[in-house]
Amino acid sequence: MMFELKEKSPAAIRQVIRENRYTGPTPGLAPGYAQANLLVIPERMAFDFLLFCQRNPKPCPVLDVTDVGSAVPEILAPGADIRTDIPRYRIYKNGALVDEVLDIKEFWRDDLVAFLLGCSFTFETALLEAGIGIRHIEERRNVPMFITNIRCRPAGKFSGAMVVSMRPIPRDQVVRAVEVTGRFPAVHGTPVHIGDPEAIGIKDINRPDFGDAVTIKPGEVPVFWACGVTPQVAVMEVKPELAISHAPGHMFIGDLRDAELAVC
Amino acid sequence: MMFELKEKSPAAIRQVIRENRYTGPTPGLAPGYAQANLLVIPERMAFDFLLFCQRNPKPCPVLDVTDVGSAVPEILAPGADIRTDIPRYRIYKNGALVDEVLDIKEFWRDDLVAFLLGCSFTFETALLEAGIGIRHIEERRNVPMFITNIRCRPAGKFSGAMVVSMRPIPRDQVVRAVEVTGRFPAVHGTPVHIGDPEAIGIKDINRPDFGDAVTIKPGEVPVFWACGVTPQVAVMEVKPELAISHAPGHMFIGDLRDAELAVC
Repeated sequence: MMFELKEKSPAAIRQVIRENRYTGPTPGLAPGYAQANLLVIPERMAFDFLLFCQRNPKPCPVLDVTDVGSAVPEILAPGADIRTDIPRYRIYKNGALVDEVLDIKEFWRDDLVAFLLGCSFTFETALLEAGIGIRHIEERRNVPMFITNIRCRPAGKFSGAMVVSMRPIPRDQVVRAVEVTGRFPAVHGTPVHIGDPEAIGIKDINRPDFGDAVTIKPGEVPVFWACGVTPQVAVMEVKPELAISHAPGHMFIGDLRDAELAVC
Repeated sequence: MMFELKEKSPAAIRQVIRENRYTGPTPGLAPGYAQANLLVIPERMAFDFLLFCQRNPKPCPVLDVTDVGSAVPEILAPGADIRTDIPRYRIYKNGALVDEVLDIKEFWRDDLVAFLLGCSFTFETALLEAGIGIRHIEERRNVPMFITNIRCRPAGKFSGAMVVSMRPIPRDQVVRAVEVTGRFPAVHGTPVHIGDPEAIGIKDINRPDFGDAVTIKPGEVPVFWACGVTPQVAVMEVKPELAISHAPGHMFIGDLRDAELAVC
């Protein structure tokens, strides 16, 4: 199935997902098209959350926001339905994970707003195309993620620490990695820190808070990018009565190409 | 007064404005620092309006949004007070201009939200520094602005046509003008159209809908940028019971330098 699906159009893949004929992770599907994180919350928190994203664009790059009660992401994919077109969803009640489901039709309400946030897959593709290896892909692990001492700018009830992902980069490719990811502000953009983990509050680079540790070879520098886990943590801390996200690695596949997200 | 003020810091200029010792227009004050458009609306419209801006970043580049009821623009100038630090304000009730005032303390309410939007002064400075003349400055007029047939992406109750400003650019500098303004997505960014006014619904290039006509010389091309009048028009069309803006040309002067708004 994975093999047949891979090269189909985003719309065709979403159709297969909608019919629950594919329920797995999305990396590698529809190469060249941007994938997105999902976060659904009630309207009464939506202004504060959109403002939190606006004030913290590196960890929270907004690609699309649905109208209140609408399940259609008009910018990313006008033909899509956010309630069915992601392989797996997680349901949170009062901040606690209560269920993992294949669609969210039964949870949908007229007061819900869906946020689709940029995902690092896009800039990882650009790094690979620039000849910069991605260690966690080479080692078939999850990217290592760390809670830092960098505070996000609060907005209304939302606040919290910035979560970062780390990729070891050979010393002579670090500047190029900054340039390449700088073209993609809509998917986290340039790094937030280069080099010293302790300077941003990371005690042990081999013990990530989320994801897996990866090998850092001699001559490589740990480079840290703002991570999309940041807004998830900020939302769950206020314990909304209902929040819905994609299951990790099971993203929304939009109609926009990665290249359409580049600024230059 | 203008001469003494010109080279002071943004904070010092705001203090003078706060005490109503300067009530004039702001172009030329605090050169190198970004100035911003103000739009204040009630909280109940704030999510839709922020979403409208997010969906239409060229005409509506958000630089800062205050927390509900707060008059402090934390990102642009944490020491400022939005109610007093602009030389002149306009008060709109149900979409109609009812007053022009020197401060808005008596109009302020706990449910108001202030939006500060990027202003073309920043990219005009960059154009001038790149050796590209600005005709309406040379001719001491207001920039010519036109209502186009380009529709903004609607959001909730907000919709409308994009308003653009026009600057005639010598043919051999048009590409450079695109490059220079492309560095500033937070202040309208690259043009939305180059060349043919009719293609975007403009019938007579010598009869702007707002501002003044300027001379277009032989060998010059009219270049059109998204204009900050767009969100004002969109807001006034829904006739909010209260809305407050800066008076034209009387902007908010923040602590950010123009260069800090550049993406590369």
